[in-house]
Amino acid sequence: MSEIVAFIGVGNMGSPMAENLIKAGKKVCVFDVSKEMLDKARERKFDIADSFENLLSRSPNIVITMLPAGKNSKKVYLGENGIINKVSKDCLLIDCSTIDIKTSVELGTKAKEKGIKMIDAPVSGGVMGAKNASLTFLVGGSREAFDSAKPILEIMGKNIFHAGDTGCGNGAKICNNMALGISMIGASEALMLAKRLNIDIKKVHEIMKNASGNSWPISVYPPLPGLKEGVPSNNKYRPGFSAGMMSKDLKLAIECAEEVKANTPLGSTANTIYDEFCKEGNSNKDFSAISKVVGGNAWDYEIDD
Amino acid sequence: MSEIVAFIGVGNMGSPMAENLIKAGKKVCVFDVSKEMLDKARERKFDIADSFENLLSRSPNIVITMLPAGKNSKKVYLGENGIINKVSKDCLLIDCSTIDIKTSVELGTKAKEKGIKMIDAPVSGGVMGAKNASLTFLVGGSREAFDSAKPILEIMGKNIFHAGDTGCGNGAKICNNMALGISMIGASEALMLAKRLNIDIKKVHEIMKNASGNSWPISVYPPLPGLKEGVPSNNKYRPGFSAGMMSKDLKLAIECAEEVKANTPLGSTANTIYDEFCKEGNSNKDFSAISKVVGGNAWDYEIDD
Repeated sequence: MSEIVAFIGVGNMGSPMAENLIKAGKKVCVFDVSKEMLDKARERKFDIADSFENLLSRSPNIVITMLPAGKNSKKVYLGENGIINKVSKDCLLIDCSTIDIKTSVELGTKAKEKGIKMIDAPVSGGVMGAKNASLTFLVGGSREAFDSAKPILEIMGKNIFHAGDTGCGNGAKICNNMALGISMIGASEALMLAKRLNIDIKKVHEIMKNASGNSWPISVYPPLPGLKEGVPSNNKYRPGFSAGMMSKDLKLAIECAEEVKANTPLGSTANTIYDEFCKEGNSNKDFSAISKVVGGNAWDYEIDD
Repeated sequence: MSEIVAFIGVGNMGSPMAENLIKAGKKVCVFDVSKEMLDKARERKFDIADSFENLLSRSPNIVITMLPAGKNSKKVYLGENGIINKVSKDCLLIDCSTIDIKTSVELGTKAKEKGIKMIDAPVSGGVMGAKNASLTFLVGGSREAFDSAKPILEIMGKNIFHAGDTGCGNGAKICNNMALGISMIGASEALMLAKRLNIDIKKVHEIMKNASGNSWPISVYPPLPGLKEGVPSNNKYRPGFSAGMMSKDLKLAIECAEEVKANTPLGSTANTIYDEFCKEGNSNKDFSAISKVVGGNAWDYEIDD
């Protein structure tokens, strides 16, 4: 008999992820607290539970959650009516939300106390990755839980990494994205300095791509138009991966850096820069639009308002 | 008849570069103001000029300079007895020094006024690149001068880029190395945060290498030991590319950013961090040892004192 997958949170990321599971033949039942998201899921002909209780009453073999923040994960997993208390012991729990490590560890520990396998499995790759099933999953949890989850994660993603024990998935994601936030601003500073110096940015970009100035933002996701096809900077900075999401991840990074007394001078500066950019109303722009901030009046590109 | 190459500045970089020219059959005559460097060149059986005047009296077809700073380049190129005034009009001038753009433009312009072809051609790749003839040359100057210089640069390097007109070689180098200084600190912050969070840094490194946190320092030159063979972090942070050189390049970047009113928040912070690190006596450590600064008491690796 086919496994029953309960999928909670069918927003921009969760919806295409659930769709890939359905395409692969999984029996997927979805739920979302947002009526708008549920209506969209209905249009896509997803099997919908009309309540959270109804979803869990279907005896799922796997529960996948894709939620905005730690407090949302807490709400669905903990408490008398939460997932951990309601599902059977052989149900596998997969939280794909990017959340703070503390909450992640708390949930994993509570599940373990009940004898339930749970992993934190935040993703990298954005909406495009979710649609193309090319996501990267960064998994925290026991080796056993990782091995159990791998086949279903492989339906939704391409690279599945076991980062360590519970919480390490979110830990690895936070470290990766802090480095990304820094290198995106660094790439923008370098290209905009070249522009101010009247050096052809196409030439500088080509040089950096082939030299020690290379980084993911330079080679894969350049922050200025005209350097690579198909990236948000060529599409009026429509996301992609939004500045709001980057700001959220940088906040998580700086919060946990403070807790463990890690020194993150550039991460902290990047956090402030993205925070201010979002407060100026740019949360929904692609995160590469941060080049506008460092570009000042030399930045003269199209951006969607 | 074989071309005569005058090579000025046979230090750690210039010496192996000159040697590669000799191996390729060029008639190379060298000079250095440092007696120590000249003695070393003598041991290597280089043809040595006993004075700057003597060097220029040999009617070189090409002059190559590899000097520490703009003031040194000015000294040898300008003035009544300088290179530009002394060589014949068909001599090709190649300044491989990494210097400020203003000086670079001044020299190129003076040469042009005399009808002499000159390029700025700073390199990337360090001492290893110089020895292996795998340097990257970033060239500023006319297309004609670039084309004339290309064959001899190809003897000493692998990638020869024409970045634009006079000064653009140094401009591109400065932009590239500013991005590098930033991403080296960013990579260090991310890996050291992972370490503080008790996540296996080998796993985080593997993840970042394959995800959006990737950068040249992550994939080619990791700042912590045990992540990649043959890099300075595995050799007690012996350079490689020294912190002092990175600090010099960041200073050049911030100086010219101020002149053209470019906004470089992370570049400026990186400049301060490297400057302080050097002032604490670490100029001769590899620049990846900056991981020690962001690592605090969690950084417990071997460093050569």
